[in-house]
Amino acid sequence: MDSAFLDKISFDSNGLVPAIAQQHDTGEVLMMAWMNRDAVLETLEKKEVCYWSRSRAKLWRKGESSGHVQKLIDFRIDCDGDTLLLLVDQVGVACHTGRHNCFFTSIKGGKAEIISDIEIPPEEMYGEKTPDA
Amino acid sequence: MDSAFLDKISFDSNGLVPAIAQQHDTGEVLMMAWMNRDAVLETLEKKEVCYWSRSRAKLWRKGESSGHVQKLIDFRIDCDGDTLLLLVDQVGVACHTGRHNCFFTSIKGGKAEIISDIEIPPEEMYGEKTPDA
Repeated sequence: MDSAFLDKISFDSNGLVPAIAQQHDTGEVLMMAWMNRDAVLETLEKKEVCYWSRSRAKLWRKGESSGHVQKLIDFRIDCDGDTLLLLVDQVGVACHTGRHNCFFTSIKGGKAEIISDIEIPPEEMYGEKTPDA
Repeated sequence: MDSAFLDKISFDSNGLVPAIAQQHDTGEVLMMAWMNRDAVLETLEKKEVCYWSRSRAKLWRKGESSGHVQKLIDFRIDCDGDTLLLLVDQVGVACHTGRHNCFFTSIKGGKAEIISDIEIPPEEMYGEKTPDA
């Protein structure tokens, strides 16, 4: 694959760039995690999303233990190259808590409120580790 | 305002947290930028989004020069507290290039392709500075 586009991505001092995953058809923002150069290349090559786990310091093939992979539909770079937007087709759920997306806490009047339910109990998800996004 | 919820946010070693802005009704992901504690509090208090500009090292009241403010509809925190999702109502356009959102570059077959048009020429946008997201 031609990887000349990599010079459009501004990796930070740790060699990472934040990547937002959005469900391609519903618009739901699923999660945010980080990618390094290798994660970007693997994601584009395999058409399945691979992040960089900061806590485990290794490539994190999303869904490798749970089966809840993210199929890549489109890969976008923002205007200054320092954020990625991945349009994906999420199999199962995106969040390690078993919710469909990670943004289930809403602040209302200064208080945190849980706004979505667990779809799949985490113990059924084969021990997939917490993202460190 | 009760600010006890702040302990649910994991600010990084620079005191910052990434914040994704999404148009509340269409689901369009508009941009990603950074917030510090003061930006979070001001955003919730004024119901208009305020980021922290890393390049200018000061609060960045989105739209303060262009008028293209982001009205806050909902404020969400992810499962591990290190990313925010802001549901907003965007006035005008979000991107300093004059496009509606910042993610207008798509990678197709290893090549970068521009997929959306400029809606408002930047010179009409009263010199709002480039976000450093």
